[in-house]
Amino acid sequence: MPSKPAFRFKRLLLTGAAGGLGRELRRRLKPYCIALRLSDIDPLGEAGAGEECVQTDLADKAAVHAMLEGVDAVVHLGGVSTEQPWEPILSANIVGAYNLYEGARKHGIKRVFFASSNHVTGFYRQDQVIDADTPPRPDGLYGLSKAFGEDLARLYFDRYGIETVVARIGSSFPEPKNRRMLSTWMSYDDLEHLVVASLTAPVVGWSVVYGISDNSSAFYDNRKARHLGFRPRDNSDVYRHALEEAEPQVDLDDPASLYQGGAFVRTGPFE
Amino acid sequence: MPSKPAFRFKRLLLTGAAGGLGRELRRRLKPYCIALRLSDIDPLGEAGAGEECVQTDLADKAAVHAMLEGVDAVVHLGGVSTEQPWEPILSANIVGAYNLYEGARKHGIKRVFFASSNHVTGFYRQDQVIDADTPPRPDGLYGLSKAFGEDLARLYFDRYGIETVVARIGSSFPEPKNRRMLSTWMSYDDLEHLVVASLTAPVVGWSVVYGISDNSSAFYDNRKARHLGFRPRDNSDVYRHALEEAEPQVDLDDPASLYQGGAFVRTGPFE
Amino acid sequence: MPSKPAFRFKRLLLTGAAGGLGRELRRRLKPYCIALRLSDIDPLGEAGAGEECVQTDLADKAAVHAMLEGVDAVVHLGGVSTEQPWEPILSANIVGAYNLYEGARKHGIKRVFFASSNHVTGFYRQDQVIDADTPPRPDGLYGLSKAFGEDLARLYFDRYGIETVVARIGSSFPEPKNRRMLSTWMSYDDLEHLVVASLTAPVVGWSVVYGISDNSSAFYDNRKARHLGFRPRDNSDVYRHALEEAEPQVDLDDPASLYQGGAFVRTGPFE
Amino acid sequence: MPSKPAFRFKRLLLTGAAGGLGRELRRRLKPYCIALRLSDIDPLGEAGAGEECVQTDLADKAAVHAMLEGVDAVVHLGGVSTEQPWEPILSANIVGAYNLYEGARKHGIKRVFFASSNHVTGFYRQDQVIDADTPPRPDGLYGLSKAFGEDLARLYFDRYGIETVVARIGSSFPEPKNRRMLSTWMSYDDLEHLVVASLTAPVVGWSVVYGISDNSSAFYDNRKARHLGFRPRDNSDVYRHALEEAEPQVDLDDPASLYQGGAFVRTGPFE
Amino acid sequence: MPSKPAFRFKRLLLTGAAGGLGRELRRRLKPYCIALRLSDIDPLGEAGAGEECVQTDLADKAAVHAMLEGVDAVVHLGGVSTEQPWEPILSANIVGAYNLYEGARKHGIKRVFFASSNHVTGFYRQDQVIDADTPPRPDGLYGLSKAFGEDLARLYFDRYGIETVVARIGSSFPEPKNRRMLSTWMSYDDLEHLVVASLTAPVVGWSVVYGISDNSSAFYDNRKARHLGFRPRDNSDVYRHALEEAEPQVDLDDPASLYQGGAFVRTGPFE
Amino acid sequence: MPSKPAFRFKRLLLTGAAGGLGRELRRRLKPYCIALRLSDIDPLGEAGAGEECVQTDLADKAAVHAMLEGVDAVVHLGGVSTEQPWEPILSANIVGAYNLYEGARKHGIKRVFFASSNHVTGFYRQDQVIDADTPPRPDGLYGLSKAFGEDLARLYFDRYGIETVVARIGSSFPEPKNRRMLSTWMSYDDLEHLVVASLTAPVVGWSVVYGISDNSSAFYDNRKARHLGFRPRDNSDVYRHALEEAEPQVDLDDPASLYQGGAFVRTGPFE
Repeated sequence: MPSKPAFRFKRLLLTGAAGGLGRELRRRLKPYCIALRLSDIDPLGEAGAGEECVQTDLADKAAVHAMLEGVDAVVHLGGVSTEQPWEPILSANIVGAYNLYEGARKHGIKRVFFASSNHVTGFYRQDQVIDADTPPRPDGLYGLSKAFGEDLARLYFDRYGIETVVARIGSSFPEPKNRRMLSTWMSYDDLEHLVVASLTAPVVGWSVVYGISDNSSAFYDNRKARHLGFRPRDNSDVYRHALEEAEPQVDLDDPASLYQGGAFVRTGPFE
Repeated sequence: MPSKPAFRFKRLLLTGAAGGLGRELRRRLKPYCIALRLSDIDPLGEAGAGEECVQTDLADKAAVHAMLEGVDAVVHLGGVSTEQPWEPILSANIVGAYNLYEGARKHGIKRVFFASSNHVTGFYRQDQVIDADTPPRPDGLYGLSKAFGEDLARLYFDRYGIETVVARIGSSFPEPKNRRMLSTWMSYDDLEHLVVASLTAPVVGWSVVYGISDNSSAFYDNRKARHLGFRPRDNSDVYRHALEEAEPQVDLDDPASLYQGGAFVRTGPFE
Repeated sequence: MPSKPAFRFKRLLLTGAAGGLGRELRRRLKPYCIALRLSDIDPLGEAGAGEECVQTDLADKAAVHAMLEGVDAVVHLGGVSTEQPWEPILSANIVGAYNLYEGARKHGIKRVFFASSNHVTGFYRQDQVIDADTPPRPDGLYGLSKAFGEDLARLYFDRYGIETVVARIGSSFPEPKNRRMLSTWMSYDDLEHLVVASLTAPVVGWSVVYGISDNSSAFYDNRKARHLGFRPRDNSDVYRHALEEAEPQVDLDDPASLYQGGAFVRTGPFE
Repeated sequence: MPSKPAFRFKRLLLTGAAGGLGRELRRRLKPYCIALRLSDIDPLGEAGAGEECVQTDLADKAAVHAMLEGVDAVVHLGGVSTEQPWEPILSANIVGAYNLYEGARKHGIKRVFFASSNHVTGFYRQDQVIDADTPPRPDGLYGLSKAFGEDLARLYFDRYGIETVVARIGSSFPEPKNRRMLSTWMSYDDLEHLVVASLTAPVVGWSVVYGISDNSSAFYDNRKARHLGFRPRDNSDVYRHALEEAEPQVDLDDPASLYQGGAFVRTGPFE
Repeated sequence: MPSKPAFRFKRLLLTGAAGGLGRELRRRLKPYCIALRLSDIDPLGEAGAGEECVQTDLADKAAVHAMLEGVDAVVHLGGVSTEQPWEPILSANIVGAYNLYEGARKHGIKRVFFASSNHVTGFYRQDQVIDADTPPRPDGLYGLSKAFGEDLARLYFDRYGIETVVARIGSSFPEPKNRRMLSTWMSYDDLEHLVVASLTAPVVGWSVVYGISDNSSAFYDNRKARHLGFRPRDNSDVYRHALEEAEPQVDLDDPASLYQGGAFVRTGPFE
Repeated sequence: MPSKPAFRFKRLLLTGAAGGLGRELRRRLKPYCIALRLSDIDPLGEAGAGEECVQTDLADKAAVHAMLEGVDAVVHLGGVSTEQPWEPILSANIVGAYNLYEGARKHGIKRVFFASSNHVTGFYRQDQVIDADTPPRPDGLYGLSKAFGEDLARLYFDRYGIETVVARIGSSFPEPKNRRMLSTWMSYDDLEHLVVASLTAPVVGWSVVYGISDNSSAFYDNRKARHLGFRPRDNSDVYRHALEEAEPQVDLDDPASLYQGGAFVRTGPFE
């Protein structure tokens, strides 16, 4: 494993820094930059050394533009990350993503790590192996909003040269929690590797990568993202025995068992 | 050419009925249904025989749901159809499309003709021939909003079985107006054929078709949409000589000449 | 249309000559050969001028081998052509096909027109457009037996150089009978063209072609078979208006409406 | 390596249990189930603890249906596994496979591991790398019969939801025996992993996987089967030096050296 | 058919103007330009009105550069167009093509019609249908030299923006001369259409098109070149009957019958 | 790692033996053969035990043919391996390659390792992952000449059965020298493995493989070359930290940073 390159960025922005993955990355990304700016709609706690905390509603255009001033690169975890009603998703993930990219353009930011989701392609079956060119089949409003963000990022690359790594993150938790996550799990270490590789690779243009560990089972094929240099090191097999014991059978009549998106595919109806 | 099948629908809804294509289709679709409901944010004039006029802002959820009551199928031209600032596009094409599909779900509507646009893929070069599986590369906010609508339609098909024909319409005018339109032009007759084929085909699921006439030159390959039965009959070659005379050279240093989206690719910057 | 090339074959064998398509081709193929040998398990009537009638059970190896003696090329329509129980399909279409190719090998026959069926791929949806490389998804035992025959033909080409055109025939009748057949119909004239092109093309190796007329709507893409020179001339649109009137709606909850194979997909269960 | 999940199945059926691979799997699969039913046309010896021995001719429909009673899942190695004349292959591999799937349907069995073979695609050259979607090119009657079984399994999945992992097994022996097997070899340990992964994966639908170890050289690409979670651990390189010494040159004029199927491609002619 | 656009080019260069196709195009291209410069290694006869004759050896760099002065666009037929020994092919087609593109770069020429050949892909079988992305398989030194020219053209596009239409011309003669040419024939009228479309299309980048008429049988699929606007109008079927009568059987043991390149595949050995 | 198979070849020819890679392979290939013939246009020093030194200009046909006498297989590194003017490239890499293959044909040589280059595809962007079927986009005259050699090799395989492994070598040096080489680097050990695998694999036909180590980041996908048995063992990550420190930012406005070919893409203009 390569040592951490210190001080690659003068100021890195991490949005969604108060969420689950955000708290984890707040700690992990600090060594890669001089200043780590943290943003969330929720309180961020005390700013540590080299940290800058800016509580921001992504739907607030002026605030978002301010948040982006002086930033070199963005790790965008912000917004809604679960299936929710239309209004909050519209506000945080659609309007919010637009505000973010418009702000990035205005401030000359050239690289974004965009935390997209496996739910962009959640309506593929679990016996299909998909790759970066597989068309979106969102499994709900959340996945739909992330598909929007992906297309938005492509537009800002084609128009303005802002590079984005679209990371369709699987299930990033300390451990996989159920049988589906044996395929979709990404450890925090591998999440860190993915973020760092995405920010560091010399040329990324608009690239799609699935964010999973080196699990023996998976629905995803990352060969088209090999230029990123992301090589995961963890494997969910460590947890396989226990999870298979706990859930020996799945019910294929339940869409949540059949489709890649799991339980997201049967939330709603939307309101 | 097959005769027109009369009365296939009890009540067909045409949104955007006061726009350029809307006025044309208002006249042409009437024979295919008993009642033709017309909707637009702009005034629709007097309702003719068998017509129902409901002036509707697509961003108004309640109004949209009311508009959909008792409808069998929808021809959705409504919303913004040019490059515009974010706010009106967000309102009409993103919120509006969501309201439309949610309303369709509530009222049990099973088939939608969704007027998408060549601007969903406007950042491909004019020397590339693309097809239904080519990933979106929107050329602006308008194209981006249509890409959103396409993904939304896929979600409503995967979740709720509402079928949509996504028609990436080229340039539908009485005549092609410039050299690019020799490739993208669709006559009004062929537009009518496309709408009728899309509403009539027994199974469409979620299908993508490019809306152009049988032009000798084109950037699009429709072979994956052959199940729709759309066979265009007009050809822009009738206008080729005059348009080539009028514009003998194109400037390939101008993105508007190079990319499929034409002048849309260099609008903005967005605000 | 090219004139008919007379006497291309000294002796052409037509199996299944007493069936629906067989009777049609019996009449049509005579001009292309000096002797037309006719075979069927059912009586073939009086042999006309230049005809040779040999009533043959395809499951009878010795009889099949005798039937092939002195033959230049085979048009193989014989065997079961509807969904039936396992035993007759096994006998006529699996054992029968094996006997046919073994006999062809022994007698040095170099070209076979193999009447396969759209039911080899009947479990694709009607909104999918498939081509010669799409993997089989048979819709019943009949389709399964034809998939076997296709693989058998490939083996005999790879091993022994016997060339076969695998023609996945849609619905060859005087007229299309229902809405699905607007997509799958092949006129008798086009069937004749397909058979003649398949027997005449200089090199066919092992080729797959879908046997349909030039219908505006179709589930099939024949571009990989262009070397055969099959260019259909009829179009089911002549019958479209009447069939759409007669059957204005299809029920997508019925697999027979949803899948390409139509009613075949819900026959059985097998016994 | 994950521990073995105990008692996943109440009663697992292993056909072909008296053959080479069968004897190996008899021993290895016992820990995964409460009862292991064993079947073969040949004698199976004494039933051990938790074993049930039912000597069965696969061509005997009633016997096959009886054999399947009370079974949760099937590992189907039974039938002919070498190139043989048509009659035994027809009986064991075609009629036998049909009897097996019909019985599975009647008894509500939902998962089958179908031991297919590299001979389904044996007529590809050894310098071609093929994958799960590569069309069959059987190299003989045995490969042809396995192609039939694969299509049969697909039909039973599409019709009745019976899931099958089609495993195109390479050369499963204690050691590779010749240079070709450096590419096609699968160790018994990896065979066990493949069977267990195939039976355990939550969703398999109808999946194709090539059964080889993690050999440095191979003709197969398994990326489309990654959802199965099969990750082989052995590598034929251990044996490479000795086998290359023993057979330093291959004769490319010999089809057995040129094609993936090896010596199978030049057996026959069939009778 | 569109009228001929007059005077699109001030000065068009036609190389190889004394050859078979050259003489034909000399006459046909004149109306499209003010000055038509003609070049060949052989005498060109008297210059007609609006013609400029410059006898040029393509291997002579200075002469080639002089020939290109003042030119807007090039139709490059020059060089060897049959299978010949290495030296003349090297000189005219490799060194000559290099001289041409270097000269074009120096003189700011932006568009080339490059007469390539079906012999670039002549080692595909006649039962394969290939397209613009199919890798080269040249059938001799001539085809090899044309593959070189194609790659050279791509380099000059990627480096210097010089656009080229690579036209893999089939068999352009007044009439097809043998059965293979039923597939490869291009009429002179269609050749003219192809040249004009290639020079006129607004954006061509580096495009590959197969130069054949609208023959019913063909080995080529031009759907990826639809942006060029080439729609052939002639069909070799007019000559089919006579040619099939004259050559009723082809010998598949002869590579000249089996491969697309015809007799070229068995010329040589090279010296 | 397998032991080295001794004496696989009686006489192996290494061209370009005085160059950087040549000197390395001279030492490494000796154990695999009885006689190692060495060739270069430059002096080769004293012949060691089992070595034969033949100073040869590849452009000299007679000398090349003499050099090939008695040879079993060729490792062809000879010729120009950097961007240079047209004349030396033409002479060494085009004429030279032709002389080599013609000589190979005359002397019955059946296997060539052809050192091609990543510069054959140097005009792809560094965010694209390409494979063996990706069409050439040479980045200069050197890459163009290697594309010629690849097509030449294919011709000699299709015509005469001479097998070639086309190895598009990345950057083979003791260590990667810059950030681009983190993706393109191949260690000398892995180069040796690649050469040996290419010469040893039983069937190679005409195969393309990218010559890189097992780097975490890469632009290349070698899955279609898995039949060769090349499994690299080194990884540029060892050098990543230092190289990223030394060159923290790349300038994407510089084509040398953007394209796979690196600085080669902006050499010239050619003369």
